[in-house]
Formats: sequence, structure tokens, C-alpha cells
Amino acid sequence: DFMASLENDIKPAYGSKEEDVERFMRNGIIMWGDAVQSTLDNGALLCNQVQNSDKTPLVSVLITGGVGSGKTALATKIAVNSGFPFIKICAPDKLVGFSEAAKCQHLKKVFDDSYKSQLSCVVMDDIEKLIDYNPIGPRFSNTVTQALMVLCKNLPPLGRRLLVIGTSSNQDLLREMGMDKSFDSHLHIPSLSTEHHINNTLEKLKAFTSDDRSSISRQLKGRKAWVGIKSLIRIVGTAEQAESPMRVPTFLSLLEDEAGLK
Amino acid sequence: DFMASLENDIKPAYGSKEEDVERFMRNGIIMWGDAVQSTLDNGALLCNQVQNSDKTPLVSVLITGGVGSGKTALATKIAVNSGFPFIKICAPDKLVGFSEAAKCQHLKKVFDDSYKSQLSCVVMDDIEKLIDYNPIGPRFSNTVTQALMVLCKNLPPLGRRLLVIGTSSNQDLLREMGMDKSFDSHLHIPSLSTEHHINNTLEKLKAFTSDDRSSISRQLKGRKAWVGIKSLIRIVGTAEQAESPMRVPTFLSLLEDEAGLK
Amino acid sequence: DFMASLENDIKPAYGSKEEDVERFMRNGIIMWGDAVQSTLDNGALLCNQVQNSDKTPLVSVLITGGVGSGKTALATKIAVNSGFPFIKICAPDKLVGFSEAAKCQHLKKVFDDSYKSQLSCVVMDDIEKLIDYNPIGPRFSNTVTQALMVLCKNLPPLGRRLLVIGTSSNQDLLREMGMDKSFDSHLHIPSLSTEHHINNTLEKLKAFTSDDRSSISRQLKGRKAWVGIKSLIRIVGTAEQAESPMRVPTFLSLLEDEAGLK
Amino acid sequence: DFMASLENDIKPAYGSKEEDVERFMRNGIIMWGDAVQSTLDNGALLCNQVQNSDKTPLVSVLITGGVGSGKTALATKIAVNSGFPFIKICAPDKLVGFSEAAKCQHLKKVFDDSYKSQLSCVVMDDIEKLIDYNPIGPRFSNTVTQALMVLCKNLPPLGRRLLVIGTSSNQDLLREMGMDKSFDSHLHIPSLSTEHHINNTLEKLKAFTSDDRSSISRQLKGRKAWVGIKSLIRIVGTAEQAESPMRVPTFLSLLEDEAGLK
Amino acid sequence: DFMASLENDIKPAYGSKEEDVERFMRNGIIMWGDAVQSTLDNGALLCNQVQNSDKTPLVSVLITGGVGSGKTALATKIAVNSGFPFIKICAPDKLVGFSEAAKCQHLKKVFDDSYKSQLSCVVMDDIEKLIDYNPIGPRFSNTVTQALMVLCKNLPPLGRRLLVIGTSSNQDLLREMGMDKSFDSHLHIPSLSTEHHINNTLEKLKAFTSDDRSSISRQLKGRKAWVGIKSLIRIVGTAEQAESPMRVPTFLSLLEDEAGLK
Amino acid sequence: DFMASLENDIKPAYGSKEEDVERFMRNGIIMWGDAVQSTLDNGALLCNQVQNSDKTPLVSVLITGGVGSGKTALATKIAVNSGFPFIKICAPDKLVGFSEAAKCQHLKKVFDDSYKSQLSCVVMDDIEKLIDYNPIGPRFSNTVTQALMVLCKNLPPLGRRLLVIGTSSNQDLLREMGMDKSFDSHLHIPSLSTEHHINNTLEKLKAFTSDDRSSISRQLKGRKAWVGIKSLIRIVGTAEQAESPMRVPTFLSLLEDEAGLK
Ligand SMILES: Nc1ncnc2c1ncn2[C@@H]1O[C@H](COP(=O)(O)OP(=O)(O)OP(=O)(O)O)[C@@H](O)[C@H]1O
Ligand SMILES: Nc1ncnc2c1ncn2[C@@H]1O[C@H](COP(=O)(O)OP(=O)(O)OP(=O)(O)O)[C@@H](O)[C@H]1O
Ligand SMILES: Nc1ncnc2c1ncn2[C@@H]1O[C@H](COP(=O)(O)OP(=O)(O)OP(=O)(O)O)[C@@H](O)[C@H]1O
Ligand SMILES: Nc1ncnc2c1ncn2[C@@H]1O[C@H](COP(=O)(O)OP(=O)(O)OP(=O)(O)O)[C@@H](O)[C@H]1O
Ligand SMILES: Nc1ncnc2c1ncn2[C@@H]1O[C@H](COP(=O)(O)OP(=O)(O)OP(=O)(O)O)[C@@H](O)[C@H]1O
Ligand SMILES: Nc1ncnc2c1ncn2[C@@H]1O[C@H](COP(=O)(O)OP(=O)(O)OP(=O)(O)O)[C@@H](O)[C@H]1O
Ligand SMILES: [Mg+2]
Ligand SMILES: [Mg+2]
Ligand SMILES: [Mg+2]
Ligand SMILES: [Mg+2]
Ligand SMILES: [Mg+2]
Ligand SMILES: [Mg+2]
Repeated sequence: DFMASLENDIKPAYGSKEEDVERFMRNGIIMWGDAVQSTLDNGALLCNQVQNSDKTPLVSVLITGGVGSGKTALATKIAVNSGFPFIKICAPDKLVGFSEAAKCQHLKKVFDDSYKSQLSCVVMDDIEKLIDYNPIGPRFSNTVTQALMVLCKNLPPLGRRLLVIGTSSNQDLLREMGMDKSFDSHLHIPSLSTEHHINNTLEKLKAFTSDDRSSISRQLKGRKAWVGIKSLIRIVGTAEQAESPMRVPTFLSLLEDEAGLK
Repeated sequence: DFMASLENDIKPAYGSKEEDVERFMRNGIIMWGDAVQSTLDNGALLCNQVQNSDKTPLVSVLITGGVGSGKTALATKIAVNSGFPFIKICAPDKLVGFSEAAKCQHLKKVFDDSYKSQLSCVVMDDIEKLIDYNPIGPRFSNTVTQALMVLCKNLPPLGRRLLVIGTSSNQDLLREMGMDKSFDSHLHIPSLSTEHHINNTLEKLKAFTSDDRSSISRQLKGRKAWVGIKSLIRIVGTAEQAESPMRVPTFLSLLEDEAGLK
Repeated sequence: DFMASLENDIKPAYGSKEEDVERFMRNGIIMWGDAVQSTLDNGALLCNQVQNSDKTPLVSVLITGGVGSGKTALATKIAVNSGFPFIKICAPDKLVGFSEAAKCQHLKKVFDDSYKSQLSCVVMDDIEKLIDYNPIGPRFSNTVTQALMVLCKNLPPLGRRLLVIGTSSNQDLLREMGMDKSFDSHLHIPSLSTEHHINNTLEKLKAFTSDDRSSISRQLKGRKAWVGIKSLIRIVGTAEQAESPMRVPTFLSLLEDEAGLK
Repeated sequence: DFMASLENDIKPAYGSKEEDVERFMRNGIIMWGDAVQSTLDNGALLCNQVQNSDKTPLVSVLITGGVGSGKTALATKIAVNSGFPFIKICAPDKLVGFSEAAKCQHLKKVFDDSYKSQLSCVVMDDIEKLIDYNPIGPRFSNTVTQALMVLCKNLPPLGRRLLVIGTSSNQDLLREMGMDKSFDSHLHIPSLSTEHHINNTLEKLKAFTSDDRSSISRQLKGRKAWVGIKSLIRIVGTAEQAESPMRVPTFLSLLEDEAGLK
Repeated sequence: DFMASLENDIKPAYGSKEEDVERFMRNGIIMWGDAVQSTLDNGALLCNQVQNSDKTPLVSVLITGGVGSGKTALATKIAVNSGFPFIKICAPDKLVGFSEAAKCQHLKKVFDDSYKSQLSCVVMDDIEKLIDYNPIGPRFSNTVTQALMVLCKNLPPLGRRLLVIGTSSNQDLLREMGMDKSFDSHLHIPSLSTEHHINNTLEKLKAFTSDDRSSISRQLKGRKAWVGIKSLIRIVGTAEQAESPMRVPTFLSLLEDEAGLK
Repeated sequence: DFMASLENDIKPAYGSKEEDVERFMRNGIIMWGDAVQSTLDNGALLCNQVQNSDKTPLVSVLITGGVGSGKTALATKIAVNSGFPFIKICAPDKLVGFSEAAKCQHLKKVFDDSYKSQLSCVVMDDIEKLIDYNPIGPRFSNTVTQALMVLCKNLPPLGRRLLVIGTSSNQDLLREMGMDKSFDSHLHIPSLSTEHHINNTLEKLKAFTSDDRSSISRQLKGRKAWVGIKSLIRIVGTAEQAESPMRVPTFLSLLEDEAGLK
């Protein structure tokens, strides 16, 4: 049982981990399209490989997708679903203002801790933020980058097994740095694009009234948009502040502005 | 009641906060045109979303506009109008001479403090100055930039809600850095451009004599200028030093030189 | 009375301030042309605005001009003429060998001190040297640059008023850095260029004999040169070392070499 | 006897060295093609030269090959086969988060230790990681690079003999840096490319059932791929997680995707 | 008397100053051509200006010339000839391995010390070395450069007078940095170029035998070379090591190789 | 007697100096061609100039040549041959992991020590390594470069005399940096290129059997190669590991691969 394992294995060094899991999946995982299930399935397969294959005690996977596409929530979900006794999510917010050396120390400690459990899963969330990437220059912490690359490939001690999940919205950057070669496999999360994706989401969120949703569904017929699940949920939240008759038009107009609906 | 909430929730770490609010809105908010009200309304809508929507405990907005367009005053006004119990304005003048690490520490503390209140509003004023941006090089503090980006997107703990307002006169810079993606929405403050904008302002300021204002109004008929409210107030101040008969011509000539009046 | 106010308000942290004032205006202010009076008048007007207008408790002005054009002396003169109880001249010579952080600390202290007086004038002399500007690279202290920009725009506490005067011989640099926008207005000091400018100066300096001056005057008729007042005074000093009959020719030949006289 | 010598000469500063050797050759050395034996033979020849030739007490060799081509395992194997009483493998994972100075100190200590034994073998694994190389910039630690270059060429004290083995997957980088000139000779490990290479490997791994292997062998006839031994073993591991009937097709499709099989 | 003044005013912080003077003019000042006297005369004139003109208590001069042209020796000679009670020669050899901050501190101290004497002369020898200039990059210490520029222009306290002499073999560099504007005047030391220059030098050095000198003189007739006095003296020194009959041909062939004699 | 002088004057700070001399000339100095003797002669001449000429108490020489051309051994030999009471060889291996400041301190100490002896010889071996040169960037320690340049030109105290020998395989780099001007003269060591050079070397090394040497000599007739003495000795060492009948072909094939024999 997951929560039990969390309680036993993870020292709550930065506050309650259960809270982190809730925060990172605040709005749950909505099955808005096939891509969601397929990502979860692929994640489960890699968990199996770690657990079962003698030859590969270390497996690593990179999850990419646009800003707000749901990377953090899905990586968290895969980790939780693994049922591994040790789970750790490294996200940039814990490291604000850390020196490069302190960041490396922290990352190293996460892996060292994971080596103490027989089966572990480590999530490196938002790699471009972990390495302080800025396209102007470009600038980034090479020290942290190198630490990540080495840690992601470092074989655990004999008898230990580890799944490493990385997430990033900047796949090109990772390729340029050769960091993609530090991961064994790669999963990409697409944007929501069809009326069905959006309808599904509104349904699951119980957003607006059922009449409003029907109205939206009619007006979306045959149209396309490109929007991440996180952004879509925010747009819904904004539209819901509008007066009742203005909600549907507000929602559609926000979709046009921010999701390229046409 | 705003002043009361200030008194209860904000430790006056850098001197009296009421004073800051007064300093930042020294000349009040003059309703020189529709854009002013519309900015305030949009700000109020986001305050509502933070307060009411369960799905979006964190909302962030970026206010841009030319140098002297009134960004700081309007961001302060929106924060004050929210009526949230915790309000904090981070401006670069408090951070002069701080090391990059100390700046990050300060910013992190502001957010950590805000997480202690159920409803908070944090203003990051003059982002390009907070990050020490200099177009030569270009140079800037990437450490502070990263801290800002992570903090602006960091979900508050469960049960806490936060509105983040950023201001900047350099929208291109933020786009180049990908920092625009750290904000959910965007408000732009235009320059004053028509005779009505200027007439309104002079009226509200009770600048010059009423005769002088009429004379100015006549001479501005059908002309265009481009000037921020802060600069316009300064120009008025300078013209007022001139001898009485020279005030109107001085004012108009300063408008021509500095506001491109034609 | 100026000297009295100096005695009361300024701690002579770096030696006697009266001495600084004398050093910076060692050869007085010679009225060599209209530009001199006009610069002083403009300076006085801004002093008035600081003192009288409620709307603008902070006014800043940038004085530019070629190397040796008299910027430091004129800024000092305007500050002295203001009669404000607090006057401070920040010049790069006090900061030789200071670290960037120490420089910022020093500048911040100057402004903090000025905020303690109701009416203050702060001179930032030779901005390109204060920021260690070197065209090769280019290199400069961005930390000091940012501190200067923020301090020059920082509103004093309620009830305090401040005039900031900056000087620089590199106007292009300031524009490139966007530092020009940190100043409300701008005064430019031209070179001496006509025979009258030079004759006036020699007269006021009582340089050479009266006969020599007449001879020079005759030989300059209708000619043009471009020279700063500081350089002209030095050239006079060099020519005076020559043997009596050689003084006039030496002076004219130095003018040709160094001031482009033709 | 190798294990005995390890026990006597190497202080287990970073955990048991026998474990490192096992970790680095987790899946043994499979003789998948002639290149494997030839690399081991060449390595043995250099061991002989160190041991026998009076003129060359220091011999160094660089092993290159693609990512996952088996460099670390083969360098470890050559070192182990040498039978030298002192063996040390420097890999980047031990140095995560070390400062540049600490890395140099560590490397220097490894060589200093090696000079205490009459016959030693030092492996510098993954040179581009040891020097923190990042193609963006490019960035790397020049301090560590210089230390490596000097240490690789430094003659041991009189009476001591040393074999230095370096590995890298970035031969171009080493050439650009002139680091190739720090090594006396050079061995390159090719990718597995023919059906025989793959068949051999599957056979040695006892991967899948014997029927599955026959099926794979038939389907590979006359085709080419380009894959490192490490990657091939991982692909086998992944395919083995598939349901029995899907294993062969999964394996072949992974080979097509990741090994360019056609 | 110069030596007496040295004894009284200069603390021999880095060994005996008389020794420095001797070291820097080890081979005296040979009057090999008019340029030598003219440089000394110009130097003397500036000494006079410092001593006599009330208007210019600070005079600075830059001495340039090729590598080995005699800059250090001539600057030392001018300083010694001034007869000023305080003389200080700052040369890069005293500052080897100093940090940038320590260099600035040292330079500042030199000037501060000079301000204690009524009449002082400070030599900044080999400016490009003082600022650690390297054309690759280019790299240099901007901190030291700025300190030099500010110190060279800093007016001494009232009642103190100072002559600053700078030397450099890289005039272009100083112009690019705008450092030339920190000096009031400029003296250039040419190379020896005619037969007379060389004959004069050999005569004064009593180099070779008198017959050898005649022979050299005959063979130089009508020819040109370009060589600094320091290099010429070294070439003489090398040629003198040759066996007697080979000295003249060796000397001429070295002149051809190193001084472009033709 | 050299060894005696070593014992008296040089504190064995880094282990026995006699050992260094032996290490650096492990295979002696083989007179493989005229260039060897001529280099030694030129070195001796400069030793004489230092010892005999009053005008030049400091003489410096730069020895260049390809990687493995014998620079270190020949510089050591010239120093040993000088018979000077103080000899010091600075090589990069002693400085691995030193900070820039520590390197400068070390170099300065070497020269300061040398100034204590009346006649000294200092070797700066492998200048590009001493300054941590890396062509990527390019990067190098400018601090050490400047220290080297200043120390190489610094006149020793009165009564002391010094020969400075520098070695480098990167002459272009030194020219670009202007470091070539810090040396008075320049010696270049060519590669071995003719059959005679190689035959001489094999003879002196007593390499292979006499029959093998004859066979090699026959097969080299009229052919050219380009190889440094150090590399040639290593090639011999490798070939000697081959079985008796394969030695000559192995040697020739290595010469073809590594020395461009054709
Ligand atoms: N199918 C889904 N996949 C992912 N997230 C989902 C899904 N359905 C709902 N969500 C919710 O959407 C939000 C996704 O936000 P998340 O932070 O994971 O996005 P992200 O791609 O990591 O964003 P960013 O690029 O800003 O890091 C979460 O609140 C999550 O609960
Ligand atoms: N409608 C208005 N909007 C904003 N400010 C107003 C308005 N009316 C009057 N003001 C006054 O104008 C001034 C605006 O200055 P403010 O510092 O906000 O400008 P800014 O755009 O932040 O300038 P900067 O670009 O220098 O940071 C304040 O004194 C404020 O009281
Ligand atoms: N009208 C004048 N304006 C300015 N300075 C004058 C004037 N008349 C005489 N002077 C004298 O000329 C000198 C001007 O020098 P100052 O240092 O002010 O020039 P500057 O432009 O600041 O030079 P720099 O570019 O080197 O900083 C002072 O000695 C001052 O007393
Ligand atoms: N012939 C072989 N050569 C090398 N390794 C082999 C061979 N046969 C099996 N192996 C196994 O393959 C794996 C090779 O991985 P190794 O880490 O040496 O590759 P690598 O080239 O160093 O990878 P990387 O580029 O990631 O550093 C090891 O598990 C090793 O036991
Ligand atoms: N007329 C002369 N001018 C200058 N130096 C002379 C003259 N006559 C003889 N000398 C001697 O020539 C040498 C000049 O060397 P000096 O170090 O001054 O040259 P430099 O130009 O400073 O060299 P560098 O460019 O290496 O710094 C000294 O030994 C000096 O005594
Ligand atoms: N004539 C010779 N000149 C130089 N070295 C010789 C000669 N004959 C034999 N040797 C031997 O050759 C080797 C030369 O190696 P050395 O380290 O001096 O070369 P190097 O040019 O300094 O190499 P690197 O470029 O790697 O620094 C030494 O072992 C030396 O004893
Ligand atoms: Mg995320
Ligand atoms: Mg503002
Ligand atoms: Mg000035
Ligand atoms: Mg490896
Ligand atoms: Mg010199
Ligand atoms: Mg060498």
C-alpha cells in the first residue's frame, strides 16, 4: 500500500510527502484522451522491467511535453502507481536560492537515499529549472547538469534497483546538451486538441452547468485547439468567475486567445 | 478593512508598509481614460478567481507598460483593493547591494510568509531591476531570475491561495527568457495619447489655474502625444515653476520635447 | 549659508568636504560663454522644483559633456548654489579598490544619509568611472550600475526631497544601458569653440601679460577650436612655462595640436 | 591473484572495489565479435610493454567508442587482466558535486597512490564527464582537463611503472583539446552491426527461448544495425517484459527504433 | 640632492630604492640621438609646470615606445632629474601574484604616500603589465585599469603637487581603453635607426675594440635598422661572447636578424 | 661539479632533484643529428653570456619543438651543463591542482630563490601546461601567464645573474600572447626526419638485434619520416614486445602510422 510505504521509507525532510503528491496532482488525472492511458501504461512497463529483469537494475525515462501539459502530475502518478517502497520527487521549488554545490549535494543525497531501498523511484521534475536554464546567453548550471547526467546513469549498488523519471518542457535543450543520452527511453505528452478532449475534461471536472457544457460541445464541433491540461483547467477557473450568461462565451473566447481555437 | 489587515499580518520589516503604499501611489490613481478602470477591473476579477475557484489556488498576472506609465501604482492599487489579509510589495530599492543569494533568500521569504496567510497577494515590482538586467552583454542575475520563475509558479500549500502580480517595462526581455510563461495572464498599460487624457489629468491634479487649463485644452485640440502618467505629472511640476505667463507655453513645449506632442 | 550647513549635516568621513568643494572648483567658474550661465540657471530651476512642488519630491538631472568640459565643477557649483542643508559629492577617487559590494554599500549610505535631511542634493560624479566602464569587452560593474539606477529613481520617504545630479562624458553608454531613463532631465556642456570663449577665459584667468593676450586675440580672429575649459586651463599652464617671447606661439601651437585650432 | 592484490593495495575509500569491478562488468564480457578479443589483446600487449620495456615506464592508451559501446567494461577487464598489484578505476559518479579543486586533488591522489606500487594500472573512465563537458558554450572544467593531461604524461618515479587507460565517447572533443596527444595509443570499440553480432549476444545472454532466438536470427538475415552492447542488453531486458508472443516483434521493433535496424 | 631625498621620504618597503634606480638604468642613458635629449627636456618642462603653475597641481605624461626602447630607464631618469623629494617607481615585478584587490591597494597607497609630500613624482611602469593585459580574449584586470585611470586624474589635496609618468609599449591598447585621456601629454621614444645612432651607442659602451667599431661603422654606412636601445645592448653582449675575429660579423648578422638591418 | 652544487644550493622541496634530472633525461641525450649538438652549443653560448657580460645579467631563451621532440630533456641538459650553482626546473606536474595564486607564488619563489645565488639557471618547462592552456575557448590562466612574462624579464638584483630557459610545443600561442617578446632568443628542435637520424638512434639505443637494425636500415633507405625522439623511443619499446620475427615489420608499420614514414 502506497501511503504506508511512504510513511515508512521517506523521512519527511521537506514537509509531508503525501502533501506533495496531492499538490502535484491537485486536480487528479483526467482521462481526456488515449494518450493519458498510454503514458501510464508505458510507465508501468518500465516499473516492471526494473522489478523483474536481472540485466537492467537501472532504468530511466524522460517525459516531455509543452508547458502545462501535465508532466509533473503524470510523473507523480507513475511513481505512485509503481508501488515501490521508496519514492522521491525532486522539484525546483525546494531548491530556490540553493548554491550550485548545495543543489548537487541535495540531488546526490536523493540518489544515495534511494540506493538504501531495494526498489526505488526518483522523479527529477522540470529539469530545465533544476539546472537554472535561461535561453539568454544561454545560461545554466553546468555543475547541476553534470550531476544529473551522472546520477541518472549511475548503476545502483548490487542488489538495488532504481527507476529514474525526468520531466522537461524543453526537449531541444536536452538534446543539445547530450542529456537525452542519459535516459534509456522517452515519453511525450501531447496537447489536448480535439473537441472530445475538451468535452471529456469539462465532464470530468463537472465544470459549468450541464447545459453550458452541451452548449460548449455544440460550439466546438469540428474545431481544433492546442492546450495543455493544466492551462485548460485554469481557463475553466477564470471563465467560472464570469456572470452565468457570460460563462460559455468567456470560456470560448479564452480558448481562442490562449489555445488557438479555430 | 485594508489598513487593519496590514497592521495584523505584515511585520514591518523594512519600515512602515502603509508608508510604502502611500509612496507608491503618491499622486493617487487618476482616471485619465478607460484603460485605467479596465486594468483595475481585470485585477479584481483575478482576485475573485483566487478567492473562489477551488481548482486554481494560484493565479499570476504580469502588468507591463512603458517607463513611467504607472505600473507600480496600479499594481499597488490592485493589491490594496483585493482586501486580502497578506499583502507584500517587493521593489528593487529594498535590495540595493544585496548579493544574488541574499536577494533569492529575501524573495523566498516573501513567498514563505505569504503561504502562512490563507489569502495573499505578492507584488514583484520592476522585474527587470529585480534581476539586475542590463542590455549591454546582456547581463542579469540568472539566479534571481530562476528564483522568480519558480516562485511565481509554485503551488502554495493545500488550503492557501495566492495572487502574484509582476510588473515590467521590458516585455520583450521577459518573453526572451521564457518568463512570460511563468505568468497566467497579462495586462498592458497604455500611454496617455489624446487631448482628453491630458485634460482629464490636469483637471484631477488641479494643475495651473482653471484659465490656463482651458488655454491648454484649446491648444491641444486634435493633437496626439505619448506620455506615461508619471512623466506627465513631472512635466506639470516643472512647468509650474515657470513664471505665471510662461506656464502654459512651458508645459506645451515640454510635451513637445518629451511626449512627442504634435 | 552653505559652509555652515556643510558643517552641521555632513560628517567629514573622507576628509574635509569644504576641501572637496575647493578641489573640484580649483579654478572657479569662469563665465566663458552663455552656456555656462544657462547651465547654472537650469540647475537652479530644478532646485526650485524639488523645494516647491508637492508632486515631485525627487528630481534628477544628468550633466554630460566631453572630457575636461567642466562637468564636475559645474555640478558642484549647482549643488552649492542650491543652499540645501545636505550636499554630498560621490566621486570615483574615494572608491578606488573598493569591491563592487562595498561600492554599492557606500552609494546606498549616501542616499540613506540624504533621506535624513528634508532637502538634499547628491552628486554622482563621473558615472562611467563609478561603474568601472571599459570599452574593451565592454566591461563594467553591473552591480554598481543597477544600484545607481535604482537609487536615482527611488522616491525618498514622505516629507523628504532630493535632487540627484549625475555627470558623465559618455552619453552613448548611458543610453545603451537604459540609464538615461533613470534621469528626469538632461543638460549638455559644450566645448569652448569661438575666439570670444578663449579670450574671455584668458582675461578671467589673467593669463600671460595683457600684451600677450591682445596678440593672441588678434591671431585667433575668425578661427575655431574645440576644447574643454579644464584642458584650456592646462594648456595655459604649460605655455606659461615657456620663455616670455615663446609663450604666445607655444600657446597657439598647443591649441592647434590639442584643440584642433584652425 | 587479482582479488588478493586488490585487498592488499587498494584502500576501499569509496566502498568495496570488488563491487565496483562487478558493477562495471555486470553482464560480463560477451565475445560478440572479433573486435572484442582484439581490444583485449591490444590491452594485454601494452601491459607487457609497461612490465618489460626499460625505456617506457609509462604507457597510456585511450579507449573510445559510442555511448553504451562497452568502454567501461572493457577498460575494467583490461585492468583486471593485467594482474598488476595496484588497480584503480576513476569514474565520474564518485565525484558528483566535488569542486574543481577537490576533483583535481582526488585525481592527483589516485596517481600518487599508484606511484607507491611497482606496477600499476589507472583507469580514467568517461573523460568528458570527469571534465564536466557540456557542448553548450562549450563548458567544461579546464582545471580538471589540465590535471588529467599532466597526470597522464607524468613519468612515475624511478623504478615505478604505470599503465594509464582513458575512456571517452567524444573523440572529437579530445582532439580539439589536444588531449589525444596525452595518450600514447588509441583503441576504438565499434558498434555491433551484423546479424552474427546480435545472434552471438542473444546466445551468450540466453535471452528469450531458444525458439525465439531462432526466429530472430531468421528475421535478421542479411540486415544491418548499429548498436552498443550496453544498449542491446537493455533492449533485450525491455522486450523480455512483453507477453511471450510479443517478445520477438517487440525486440525487433526496438532494434528498428533505437539501433537503426533495416 | 636626490639620494638624500630618497633616504628621507621613501620607506624601502621592497628593498633599497637606490638599487631600483640603478637596476632600471643599469647601462646608464646613452645619448644615441636627438630624441633622447628631447625626451629628457620635455620631461623637465613638465616638472617645472608642476612646481611653478598654480593652476595645474597635477600633471601627467605617458611615455610610449617599442619593447626595449628604453622607456623604463628614461622615465626613471626624468623622475630622478626632477629633484622632487618624493619619488616612487611602480613596476609590475613587485606585484607578481598579487590579487587584483591587492594591486589596487598597493597603487592607492603609492598615491596616498605621494600626497604627503609637497612635490612628488610617481612612475607607473609598463602599464599593460600592471593591468595583466593579454591580447588573447583580450584579458586584463579592469579593476586595476580603473584604479590607474582614476588615480592618474585625481587632484592631490590642496597644497600638494604631483607629476605622474606612465610607460607602455602598447599605445593602441591604451587608446582603445580610453586610458590615453587620463594623461595630459604624451612622449614617444623612437627606435635607433641610422648608422649614427648605432655608432654612437657602440662608442659610448666602449663595445668591442676601437678597430672593430671602425669596421662596423664602415659596414653600416648608408644602411638602416630598427632596434631599441635595450635590445641593441643585448646584441652587443651576445656578439662579445664570440671569438675575436667573429665578433663583427656576429654583431652584424644579429642586427640583420633582430633589427631588420639592410 | 654539478651534483655537488645541487646538494648545496637546492633544497629538495619536491623530492630529490637528482631524481628529476634523471627522470627528465631517462634515455639520455642521443646525438641523432647535427641539430642536437647545435642546440647544446647555443645553450652553452648563452650560459657564457650570463657569466661574462656585465651588460646583460639576465638572458632568456625559448626552446620550441613538436610534442615529444625532446624539449624537456635538452633544456635539462643545458641547465646541467652550465655548471651554475643554482638550477631549478619548474614542470607542470608539480603544480597539478594548485590554484592560480598558488602557482604564481610557487613561480615567484623559484625566481626569488634563484636571486640568492650569484649564477642561476631556471627552466620553465612546458609553458602551455604551466598556464593551463586549452584551445577550446581558448582558456588559460592569465594570472600565471603574466607572472611568467614579468618574471622572465625581471632584472635580478645587482650582482646576481640568471639564465631563464622556457620550453613550449606551441610557438604560435606564445606569439599571439606576446610572450615571445619576453625571451631574448629562440631555439627550435626539429623532428627526426632522415634514415640517418633513425639509424643513429637505434644504434645508440642498442635497440633490437644488430641484424634487425641492418634490415631496418636497408628498408628505410631514401625514405622520410617526421618523429620526435621521445615518440621514436616509445615506438621502439612497443615493437620490442612483438615476437622476434615480427619486430622489424611492427617497427616499420608503427613508423608509417605514427611518423608518416613513406
Ligand atoms: N490527464 C492528466 N494529466 C496530467 N495532469 C492532469 C491530468 N488531468 C488532470 N490533471 C491536472 O492538471 C494539472 C497538471 O499540471 P502539471 O503541473 O502536472 O503540469 P506540468 O506540465 O508539469 O506544468 P509545467 O509545465 O508548468 O511544469 C494538475 O493539477 C493535475 O492534477
Ligand atoms: N491612473 C494612474 N495610474 C498609475 N499611476 C497614477 C495614475 N494616476 C496617477 N498616478 C500617479 O502616477 C505615478 C505613477 O508612477 P509609477 O511609479 O507607478 O510609474 P511606473 O510605471 O511604475 O514607473 P517606472 O517605470 O519608473 O517604474 C504615481 O505617483 C501615481 O500616484
Ligand atoms: N565655466 C566653467 N565650467 C566648469 N569649470 C570651470 C569653469 N571655469 C573654470 N572652470 C575650472 O575648470 C576645471 C574644470 O574641471 P572639471 O574637473 O570640472 O572638468 P570635468 O569635465 O569634470 O573633467 P573630467 O572629464 O576629467 O571629469 C575646474 O578646475 C574648474 O574650476
Ligand atoms: N564485449 C563486451 N564489451 C563490453 N561490455 C560488455 C561486453 N559484453 C557484455 N558487456 C556488458 O555490457 C555493458 C557495457 O556497459 P558499459 O558501461 O561498459 O558501456 P559504456 O560504453 O561504458 O557506456 P557509457 O557510454 O554509458 O559509459 C556491461 O554491463 C558489460 O558487462
Ligand atoms: N638613451 C637611453 N634611453 C633609455 N635607456 C638607455 C639609454 N641608453 C642606455 N640605456 C639602457 O638601456 C636599457 C633600457 O632598458 P629599459 O628597461 O628602460 O627598456 P624598456 O623600453 O623599458 O624595455 P621593456 O619594453 O622591456 O620594458 C637600460 O639598461 C638603460 O640603462
Ligand atoms: N637528442 C635528444 N634530445 C632530447 N631527448 C633525447 C635525446 N636523445 C634521447 N632523448 C630522450 O628522449 C626523451 C625526450 O623526452 P622529453 O620529455 O624531453 O620530450 P618533450 O619534447 O619534452 O616531450 P613533451 O612534448 O611531451 O613535453 C627523454 O627520455 C630523453 O632522455
Ligand atoms: Mg511541471
Ligand atoms: Mg515602477
Ligand atoms: Mg569630472
Ligand atoms: Mg562508461
Ligand atoms: Mg620597461
Ligand atoms: Mg616536455
